[in-house]
Amino acid sequence: MIKRWLRFQHFDTVRFGTVEGDKIRIYEGDMFDAPTPTDYTLQLSDVKLLMPAVPGKVLAMWNNFHALGRKLGLEPPPEPLYLLKTPNSYLAPGATIRKPLCEDKVAFEGELAIVIGKTCFNVSEADAPDHIFGYTCANDVTVNDIIKRDPTFPQWVRAKGFDTFCPFGPVIATGLDPAMLVVRTILNSEVRQDYPINDMVFSAAQLVSRISKDMTLDPGDILLCGTSVGVGSMRPGSIVEVEIDGIGKLSNRFE
Amino acid sequence: MIKRWLRFQHFDTVRFGTVEGDKIRIYEGDMFDAPTPTDYTLQLSDVKLLMPAVPGKVLAMWNNFHALGRKLGLEPPPEPLYLLKTPNSYLAPGATIRKPLCEDKVAFEGELAIVIGKTCFNVSEADAPDHIFGYTCANDVTVNDIIKRDPTFPQWVRAKGFDTFCPFGPVIATGLDPAMLVVRTILNSEVRQDYPINDMVFSAAQLVSRISKDMTLDPGDILLCGTSVGVGSMRPGSIVEVEIDGIGKLSNRFE
Repeated sequence: MIKRWLRFQHFDTVRFGTVEGDKIRIYEGDMFDAPTPTDYTLQLSDVKLLMPAVPGKVLAMWNNFHALGRKLGLEPPPEPLYLLKTPNSYLAPGATIRKPLCEDKVAFEGELAIVIGKTCFNVSEADAPDHIFGYTCANDVTVNDIIKRDPTFPQWVRAKGFDTFCPFGPVIATGLDPAMLVVRTILNSEVRQDYPINDMVFSAAQLVSRISKDMTLDPGDILLCGTSVGVGSMRPGSIVEVEIDGIGKLSNRFE
Repeated sequence: MIKRWLRFQHFDTVRFGTVEGDKIRIYEGDMFDAPTPTDYTLQLSDVKLLMPAVPGKVLAMWNNFHALGRKLGLEPPPEPLYLLKTPNSYLAPGATIRKPLCEDKVAFEGELAIVIGKTCFNVSEADAPDHIFGYTCANDVTVNDIIKRDPTFPQWVRAKGFDTFCPFGPVIATGLDPAMLVVRTILNSEVRQDYPINDMVFSAAQLVSRISKDMTLDPGDILLCGTSVGVGSMRPGSIVEVEIDGIGKLSNRFE
């Protein structure tokens, strides 16, 4: 059964729970370790949504979709290629993505995000799904002009590491098959990206398995699956939305 | 006056304080915000040293020393070039650096580390020193063979992001002038790196100022200043030490 988990602030308290229609069922304990439902609910409209998890790290894939690779003339890579997003880039659903001090264009990249549920190191592809808690929507915001500005050192971390450059949410959906999902990015009500997750070079289970051979992944850690065709830049004042049916819609203003 | 701050575990309690000879003066409050000395001391030999700070992020500079740049045929870069270390790489002084699952060589890089003391965004070079808490020793451990293995995407984050690949400590020294420091890296009692900090392309104040124009830096965040000549690889069973007079000696075993 699909559940949609969220974190929220109600007056001065931070809690988590699941969506039940227009209400939130409040849970107690640890979202990733046997959370317990309470008898209490709140109206969704009465709370402020927070990031649905507080990741220790967010890894972002590059060149993980066949369609975008073909467009850019890139072969599918033999292993997952990734960088790391800075903690200052993490942003809640509904919050504002801020233009950096630099004058370069700022691009959206709508993506599926994997949320880790159990600590894992060196897990097999078969065991990987058991270590995934669920999935959310993310926007891997990027200043593309910075990446190759220095001929000796591609600045991936910097280009994607400005404050507010990693919105994700609004919920983490559990109990769904990621291979069936479709990612849509909508800029000012116009659909700009609309691509299937089954076009990924490395599936969700393969990403978790392969990357867990490099490093320990902890509950709440996030893997951004990479983006596909249709990426573009945003003007200040834009509303950018990343929508995945079965999960929900992440909406942020850009200023 | 120079003080040397450390975090430690005493039985099941984590505390922090300053070094006084062979004792620790215990402090209360927040190390970065008006910490208060207590009347209590402990013997240094009775505690287990922890990482001296718990960073939200660790940024690592590349090509920031003239001597190494000349050796590699690189021009001094016009702006700081950096990547991000993963949280799973953070390691306490005295703890063991672990060989990754891959069979590639593992290299040490002895470095000076800047510890941020006050939240800063877009600070001037003149104001930057006031936002630096102090300095510590670090080892930016790296699997060099991974970096350029894929011709389309240099894997800096991965090559430097394996578990235990970012030891730092043992203390954070405050009240010293970083331009006067010398970094020595000692592998199995043999000095392998011995270079002056005043050879940096970007000084500590310049790094903090420039990077704070990209992103917010928070108390406890760390900037690794980059390394210079003498980098080499470690065999399992090695002891690697990074020593900076005025700060102390970071010692870790590699297995």
